[in-house]
Amino acid sequence: MMYNFKNDYAEGAHPLILDKLASSNFEQELGYGDDRFSEKAKQAIRAKIGQPDAPLYFVSGGTQANLLVISHLLRPHEAVISAKTGHIYANETGAIEATGHRVITVEPENGKVTATAVAAVIAAHQLRPHVVKPKMLYISNSTELGTIYRKDELIALHAACRQHGLLLFMDGARLGHALTATANDLSLAEIALHTDVFYIGGTKNGALLGEAIVFPTAQLATDFDYSLKQKGALLAKGRILGIQFLALFEDNLYFDLAKHANDRAQQIADSISACGFSFLTPPQTNQLFPILPKKLIEQLLANYAFYVWTEIDQAYAAVRIITSWATDATQVDNFCADIKELSKTLA
Amino acid sequence: MMYNFKNDYAEGAHPLILDKLASSNFEQELGYGDDRFSEKAKQAIRAKIGQPDAPLYFVSGGTQANLLVISHLLRPHEAVISAKTGHIYANETGAIEATGHRVITVEPENGKVTATAVAAVIAAHQLRPHVVKPKMLYISNSTELGTIYRKDELIALHAACRQHGLLLFMDGARLGHALTATANDLSLAEIALHTDVFYIGGTKNGALLGEAIVFPTAQLATDFDYSLKQKGALLAKGRILGIQFLALFEDNLYFDLAKHANDRAQQIADSISACGFSFLTPPQTNQLFPILPKKLIEQLLANYAFYVWTEIDQAYAAVRIITSWATDATQVDNFCADIKELSKTLA
Amino acid sequence: MMYNFKNDYAEGAHPLILDKLASSNFEQELGYGDDRFSEKAKQAIRAKIGQPDAPLYFVSGGTQANLLVISHLLRPHEAVISAKTGHIYANETGAIEATGHRVITVEPENGKVTATAVAAVIAAHQLRPHVVKPKMLYISNSTELGTIYRKDELIALHAACRQHGLLLFMDGARLGHALTATANDLSLAEIALHTDVFYIGGTKNGALLGEAIVFPTAQLATDFDYSLKQKGALLAKGRILGIQFLALFEDNLYFDLAKHANDRAQQIADSISACGFSFLTPPQTNQLFPILPKKLIEQLLANYAFYVWTEIDQAYAAVRIITSWATDATQVDNFCADIKELSKTLA
Amino acid sequence: MMYNFKNDYAEGAHPLILDKLASSNFEQELGYGDDRFSEKAKQAIRAKIGQPDAPLYFVSGGTQANLLVISHLLRPHEAVISAKTGHIYANETGAIEATGHRVITVEPENGKVTATAVAAVIAAHQLRPHVVKPKMLYISNSTELGTIYRKDELIALHAACRQHGLLLFMDGARLGHALTATANDLSLAEIALHTDVFYIGGTKNGALLGEAIVFPTAQLATDFDYSLKQKGALLAKGRILGIQFLALFEDNLYFDLAKHANDRAQQIADSISACGFSFLTPPQTNQLFPILPKKLIEQLLANYAFYVWTEIDQAYAAVRIITSWATDATQVDNFCADIKELSKTLA
Repeated sequence: MMYNFKNDYAEGAHPLILDKLASSNFEQELGYGDDRFSEKAKQAIRAKIGQPDAPLYFVSGGTQANLLVISHLLRPHEAVISAKTGHIYANETGAIEATGHRVITVEPENGKVTATAVAAVIAAHQLRPHVVKPKMLYISNSTELGTIYRKDELIALHAACRQHGLLLFMDGARLGHALTATANDLSLAEIALHTDVFYIGGTKNGALLGEAIVFPTAQLATDFDYSLKQKGALLAKGRILGIQFLALFEDNLYFDLAKHANDRAQQIADSISACGFSFLTPPQTNQLFPILPKKLIEQLLANYAFYVWTEIDQAYAAVRIITSWATDATQVDNFCADIKELSKTLA
Repeated sequence: MMYNFKNDYAEGAHPLILDKLASSNFEQELGYGDDRFSEKAKQAIRAKIGQPDAPLYFVSGGTQANLLVISHLLRPHEAVISAKTGHIYANETGAIEATGHRVITVEPENGKVTATAVAAVIAAHQLRPHVVKPKMLYISNSTELGTIYRKDELIALHAACRQHGLLLFMDGARLGHALTATANDLSLAEIALHTDVFYIGGTKNGALLGEAIVFPTAQLATDFDYSLKQKGALLAKGRILGIQFLALFEDNLYFDLAKHANDRAQQIADSISACGFSFLTPPQTNQLFPILPKKLIEQLLANYAFYVWTEIDQAYAAVRIITSWATDATQVDNFCADIKELSKTLA
Repeated sequence: MMYNFKNDYAEGAHPLILDKLASSNFEQELGYGDDRFSEKAKQAIRAKIGQPDAPLYFVSGGTQANLLVISHLLRPHEAVISAKTGHIYANETGAIEATGHRVITVEPENGKVTATAVAAVIAAHQLRPHVVKPKMLYISNSTELGTIYRKDELIALHAACRQHGLLLFMDGARLGHALTATANDLSLAEIALHTDVFYIGGTKNGALLGEAIVFPTAQLATDFDYSLKQKGALLAKGRILGIQFLALFEDNLYFDLAKHANDRAQQIADSISACGFSFLTPPQTNQLFPILPKKLIEQLLANYAFYVWTEIDQAYAAVRIITSWATDATQVDNFCADIKELSKTLA
Repeated sequence: MMYNFKNDYAEGAHPLILDKLASSNFEQELGYGDDRFSEKAKQAIRAKIGQPDAPLYFVSGGTQANLLVISHLLRPHEAVISAKTGHIYANETGAIEATGHRVITVEPENGKVTATAVAAVIAAHQLRPHVVKPKMLYISNSTELGTIYRKDELIALHAACRQHGLLLFMDGARLGHALTATANDLSLAEIALHTDVFYIGGTKNGALLGEAIVFPTAQLATDFDYSLKQKGALLAKGRILGIQFLALFEDNLYFDLAKHANDRAQQIADSISACGFSFLTPPQTNQLFPILPKKLIEQLLANYAFYVWTEIDQAYAAVRIITSWATDATQVDNFCADIKELSKTLA
């Protein structure tokens, strides 16, 4: 078996989570998220956000979270703006359009949406009523290209949203990786201050499954419970989401796990840089997009699994390497050593 | 804490399932259901069905399974027929209508749809194109009222569907309880023979979550993978569904658990009958709807949790009592004893 | 050719409308409803309503009006209540469900929804979030069974809607016939006072096509122009709707035409009553549902076209007879004479 | 009043159409498109197409036709490809997405989609099931930029569609203008041979309203009547569409009217070319996009109404000038003279 750097969901869950599921197993709880574990998990997360009353809901996965939030908040003629590389446009089989809404795409910079791009969309949608009405900006942090939003960038986007009447929604499937990145200058509380709704991803950071949707703008959550049920997102045993998020947030586990992934990625990025190779986007979190000689890629693929992302030219391609909370230190050491060794023989 | 007879999802998962999740935890697997556990689980289920090639998909819950199957199979102007008490009409927040389709309701008999009712719907939808086109029949087995379809009933419905151009879809959220009921004369293989699509419920029979959707009419599954992703139902860690269904179906665990629930329910039903009380619908599986004196209900509610279902008259109401794979034998003994004792004092 | 009493859209338009279309034909106008005729027509209608600022939109037909209003005003989890005989449930091919919303039906009394039925729906939809949220009441005036709402009935429904947080939407495809009925005690202005949105039907009262949607609760119309365009309801030559409604409302033509239809229906109803026959619903407007001997029906169908509505018993059936602005007086005389004559021979 | 070159729907209908509406006005007809005029109109159109059995439906407008065809033919996970300038993407308020489907855009060449662009879309949508499934190609002829598809281009696109499993749908809101263009080498029959579905626009070529949807691939029309009704597109007085299309197609009126518009546009284009100005896209039909000095534009806008389309540079902008069946020859002469005169003074 080759070691897998393809994604951050190749293993099960962090053992503490499995332990908690087992130790609580025979306690009888109410269904549909009304259990005591979910309530405690919500309180733990709210405390970290600094908003003790923020509405908060647990769902199974990112696509589900995205379609729930967007379809709940937009009226039929309203649209959401996203980077072309945004998950809702590039990877979700038209899930948003299936709820009736256009995704308006913009060219990202390093995977990120800029306030300039948002303003251009607004300018291009003035011929009412023949055009959709942009009403929401969707961003991912960290982005689908591994980059993160800095505080000034988020504040600028938030201001642009306020100016243009847009809601700001942050996909945080990898929010832990963003917030524990070396380059990060945002806190969870600041995320909440500068978005209208966001979610905290569990699936890609040590849980079996689960994302926690937070509504810092509380009134937007009105009737969200109905939407959860209608879209098939309300688990009968909601406890299993509550228990996992309690394990992740009652102490600092969520951030520890993300930091582990980032550190392993940094080690790989450093090795690659040391060999003189560059990156498609700056290596900031647990997703790396190094540009490597095709020959080297071929050799690495004999022992490690990862995606070839895009061709750069005849000799080079960008690949995607992802680490996770579970990434094995020895395997990373081996991988780095192999890169170093193989790149020498190529020279 | 009162003992909970409100539903069959008050506890976590059967310990064998938790063990299997733990023991496999660090094996790296492909995401999105392409893992080896899911494949093995599918083979195990297909073997029990006797259809080695039947398309099979794992999803998180019943509402999700229902909206996926129905929206995948119906064209925009087509509708699904259901009992008024059917889960898709009574308990899913308009999930089916949210995908664009009408649910046409019929009055059930003991929770079951009859071929006569189906024929009446067809007769009432002739004024094309001013009416929706009925295209599917949805039934639940066991039903939302705890009853089961007998073989002759299912065959009659299947024939009616063939005659009227309807697909037959069986919601099997509690299929285990149906198939292990004393009165049952259907096998899993026969279910597959006499439906176009059905699912096997895990959530209400010992899994943390999960339903297995089976397409005996294989071509109906074309492109179903796209639907799964689009509706937010494709778990990144699909392994957690595969592992659970493998635990349930590699041996006979699924049926053993359902039988446990049915047996406990039978014990309660017998106690209630012995006290001279009757039932809203025949007690056949793990959901009981006894008609009890309101005074007795009040006294029982001091020590046990269950739903008061509907008022019968000034003195009596029907309640719903549900047992599960996890129902404690001692608690059932106590409950039966209490009923016996309290009903004496009422007399 | 048999004379046609099947519906009120068998002919083209009232000649004054055709004249106005012809005389204005070569005036250049702005498209999409921004023409001067539409503006004048809106002012004329608003003046009759007594609400000079009420938002008002012209669309092509009743199903379009219904789906536009309902999909514009409901959020995804919200539902609309209608009589089982209501047009949106019985005659529109699931148009409302196709926009994602359940139509909750109630048994009507003489085609009308009662406040008691509304309260029962609310009571049955308390198990949040597992049920849809009733948010609108849809009624038709005149109803699909030819009856009308009296002032006290409308006020009672309006109060029930306020109490239960429902919007009140009146389908006025035949509002002219309702308001000119002998039994009517409502004015157009009172309709506006006691509904949140309603429309005034042109198609069934002398126009080629067209319904005028009025929002007495003005803020509900926010962004309705987007909905019109998105649903394909915004005619490039909006002038043709404006011109027609101007012809109907600059004087009293709209009401004169409806009264003509009602008068001819009354004449037929009187003849039928004089022969000793009864009616399925009280004959109040231009739709009659007399209960006649099947033998008489058969004989009448040899010379006149109308629908057999429903069987009453072995000997009798209810039929539907509709008159219109264009119904020919001589044909009505003949029809009445034939009824009288033929019923004698039956006796 | 300034003379209006803004669009081709500023006037009413061709007088022959109004005459036919008036002369047939009191004939009683069946509703919902089952009238004799609609049947005759269909036969007349089918004769011109050379497909005597092609399913054919009349609807009110282009957006309605587009959303009907696309939502009828695509399954939920399927998407339609369109030029970025295509009407369904640029001008219809997300009408297609509102029915649940993504519009995948490509960069057009002179407003036209190329087979190369189609192949690139297919290549970019291979990561099943995480991406939508392209299933239809939408093109407009003439395009939104006034250009037309030549026979070889249409055949190439049709072949590309066959190769990639795509349906080919042609928006013919201005099909008359395309087919009577000097550069055109396609016949109506050839359009039918090389598309799966297309429509013939009446609204922009002399009718009050109306488009005729033709299904050369007949089985695609199965149940289309239901879709018409469900989407609010089935007019009660379907006769008014039938009468108009009969007037347009029983002789050659449809093509005569389009040729008139094209000829007037050609006259304007020649005048502009003679002044040494160029065009954004080649002037081929009744929509012109000349690139003019801003100063000249300003002066022309004092006497004529037309849209400024897009800025070219500091000194120049492209404008859109549209002629129609009703465009007045004297006004065109004046406009041409003014351009000539004013451009001299600018030099």
